[in-house]
Amino acid sequence: MRFRSDVTVKLVRSLADDEGVVQAARVSYEGENTPSAEAEGLINFLMRNKHGSPFEHNSMTFYIEAPIFVFREFHRHRIGWSYNEESARYKKLEPVFYIPGRERKIVQEGKAGTYTMVSGDEEQWEYVEGLSEWSYKNSYRMYTRLLEEGIAREVARNVLPTGIYSSMYATCNARSLMAFLALRTDDPSAAFPSKPLREIAMVAEQMEDLWTEQMPLTAQAFKNQRRVAP
Amino acid sequence: MRFRSDVTVKLVRSLADDEGVVQAARVSYEGENTPSAEAEGLINFLMRNKHGSPFEHNSMTFYIEAPIFVFREFHRHRIGWSYNEESARYKKLEPVFYIPGRERKIVQEGKAGTYTMVSGDEEQWEYVEGLSEWSYKNSYRMYTRLLEEGIAREVARNVLPTGIYSSMYATCNARSLMAFLALRTDDPSAAFPSKPLREIAMVAEQMEDLWTEQMPLTAQAFKNQRRVAP
Amino acid sequence: MRFRSDVTVKLVRSLADDEGVVQAARVSYEGENTPSAEAEGLINFLMRNKHGSPFEHNSMTFYIEAPIFVFREFHRHRIGWSYNEESARYKKLEPVFYIPGRERKIVQEGKAGTYTMVSGDEEQWEYVEGLSEWSYKNSYRMYTRLLEEGIAREVARNVLPTGIYSSMYATCNARSLMAFLALRTDDPSAAFPSKPLREIAMVAEQMEDLWTEQMPLTAQAFKNQRRVAP
Amino acid sequence: MRFRSDVTVKLVRSLADDEGVVQAARVSYEGENTPSAEAEGLINFLMRNKHGSPFEHNSMTFYIEAPIFVFREFHRHRIGWSYNEESARYKKLEPVFYIPGRERKIVQEGKAGTYTMVSGDEEQWEYVEGLSEWSYKNSYRMYTRLLEEGIAREVARNVLPTGIYSSMYATCNARSLMAFLALRTDDPSAAFPSKPLREIAMVAEQMEDLWTEQMPLTAQAFKNQRRVAP
Repeated sequence: MRFRSDVTVKLVRSLADDEGVVQAARVSYEGENTPSAEAEGLINFLMRNKHGSPFEHNSMTFYIEAPIFVFREFHRHRIGWSYNEESARYKKLEPVFYIPGRERKIVQEGKAGTYTMVSGDEEQWEYVEGLSEWSYKNSYRMYTRLLEEGIAREVARNVLPTGIYSSMYATCNARSLMAFLALRTDDPSAAFPSKPLREIAMVAEQMEDLWTEQMPLTAQAFKNQRRVAP
Repeated sequence: MRFRSDVTVKLVRSLADDEGVVQAARVSYEGENTPSAEAEGLINFLMRNKHGSPFEHNSMTFYIEAPIFVFREFHRHRIGWSYNEESARYKKLEPVFYIPGRERKIVQEGKAGTYTMVSGDEEQWEYVEGLSEWSYKNSYRMYTRLLEEGIAREVARNVLPTGIYSSMYATCNARSLMAFLALRTDDPSAAFPSKPLREIAMVAEQMEDLWTEQMPLTAQAFKNQRRVAP
Repeated sequence: MRFRSDVTVKLVRSLADDEGVVQAARVSYEGENTPSAEAEGLINFLMRNKHGSPFEHNSMTFYIEAPIFVFREFHRHRIGWSYNEESARYKKLEPVFYIPGRERKIVQEGKAGTYTMVSGDEEQWEYVEGLSEWSYKNSYRMYTRLLEEGIAREVARNVLPTGIYSSMYATCNARSLMAFLALRTDDPSAAFPSKPLREIAMVAEQMEDLWTEQMPLTAQAFKNQRRVAP
Repeated sequence: MRFRSDVTVKLVRSLADDEGVVQAARVSYEGENTPSAEAEGLINFLMRNKHGSPFEHNSMTFYIEAPIFVFREFHRHRIGWSYNEESARYKKLEPVFYIPGRERKIVQEGKAGTYTMVSGDEEQWEYVEGLSEWSYKNSYRMYTRLLEEGIAREVARNVLPTGIYSSMYATCNARSLMAFLALRTDDPSAAFPSKPLREIAMVAEQMEDLWTEQMPLTAQAFKNQRRVAP
């Protein structure tokens, strides 16, 4: 049994750079009335004017390890995203489970669409860690027992919790990634602030860092536009 | 605590009939060289020739109750589908869990992409029912305890199993529904047989029945074409 | 030969109302922390917080007549849109052509991504009307001649101009419609102003009026949020 | 003025190989019951069983020059496709026009959804070539005149015919490309034969050749499955 408080995000394949945005934009927009072909100015112009299509001609494939409850939210992003997730029908899942780290706020205060999350006290933390571990262990033991009795993986796995880790390949382009980041990061500079689940934000933040290395001018233009996806 | 072996599928809103297919097709295809405007012939012509777009101008909203592991597969259908699922961040989930019914095959035989499912023996059934119930009860008790300690719903729910029931609205059109049915039903007449998870097939079969009442000629044409979605 | 300066937009089928948004949202968000179930407040909450999915469970089918150059832009809207357009492969196109009305600005001033459109002078208007008509007539005569010689419609139509009228069915939902309206209307109240082609804006404005009749609270919430699509 | 009978298709950027399909599939399907990890067998298994998602984690960007009437059909492919086409709002279009080559069948025989195309006689060819050229020249002259009078490009271009060449970047993945090829090529080996417009088939054939160089095992598996896209 392993207990983790983090997520894994790796960029496994990528064909994504700022130059590709410029090239695609030039096919559409080049003419007398477009800004100079200088990349930075053009990319900011596209972002500001919500010309989104030039940001689509690229591809990034990420390998992600995260709990199932994160992937449940992730898969709601339908457009410009491709997924292949580990299947509990085809293989036995490993006993790796999520326990929140101490920096994760675990208590909710307030009401009616306006609540905020705050840290718990020591006793609450001990409950989260102790009860989660105990529950995870018990569920996994039942899973193992069912498999030992010859029950199919696709039936035995029903008892496994959404806190178990899974893994997937997720492929997107810069435009679909920005739409994801706008909703799944919690950034005070955003024109439209979002309050995502902390664990999907942990994935999103790592994706943003990896993307920024690939397409620095585009990532900067996204920030300049206060994280409004084009 | 409730244990269920079935799923709920209701058609809550629908604007879908065969006549709408005919009307849309006439905009595109009417002219000297199309079949007579008689609905049945035209719909079969469209299905056979993979003219898919006339099947998109309609809408069906289903209310579905099923275990989370079913919704996990369902949400992989991205195109022409809209979802709103109950959120465990916003409300406490009810203790309703899935136990396979006796007609569900629970043992896997064979190997390498060619396995088949067979019924279990009495002892195996008792294990599935007994261990699943026991595991579900334990997980839900831990969930309740965490909530009682003031832990946020979005943290406490991590211990809940994928066998717990959730509910959602799912909206599609006839074309996106046919693509779903082709993959998520197990029908010997299909040109491209599929081996879906039994529980999602239970949902799919009910959706197909409800759809067939709305669009009988289209549903028949889908069958005539051996369940190949246009 | 007919010359038109307008476009036709009719709502031919619709299953769209504010109540459907509320019902879908309640499946996902109802719980202790959501706003009161009162429709107007809930819809504004969803729009403001970019919870877009509840706006997808509805359907509107429009019949549109507009020049081909409008449909060229329209078809770039890929997601949540279904189209069936009149086909020049299947039938002979009617001689109906677009001439700008006098309120349409026809002269471009300024440069480099910042130009504005202004009205032309009388002489320029006479050129637009006279040369367009003359050119349209000539193209259509060549088209007719080719058909008379037994040439296939799909070959003869190559000479027809993009100013010829076509017709289509276009089906969308409130969310995909808002994304379209945000880009294809020119509204000074918009948070992100757009400078669409005037002729597609003429279509968009009529669609917005028809939609507003169906979903008045949703349309008002879109305006309240300065036309930022969720 | 230039008259062309061909289309240009270049692969400008590509991150696409068979190994990527295998890697993505292994995340989902690897386990006791999948075929050996050997690439060819696995890819054929995926294609045969319509496991389409592993074919999505790749990207190909094509540069295409073709007449507008080809792009009109192309843009109807919405899913897994990104486009940036030359804009007649932003720049003056060049006088390059399409005239069918002699191998293109230009006469239609038969009726009611079952017509076939046949070659024309010498006189018919002379009409197609002569009238098309004459019509194109006249339309382009009117376009030029309008521009000379100071009329905006976006108004003047309405008189230009759909036979004028445009250019675009089109980005897809192997799955969306196969869906396109299944409909837009005319191949007697296809399980579901299609009768595409000849000119879009000319584009599709070149795309297929370029794709086959990138992903030979996948392209062969597509052929093995009689061109049924997964």
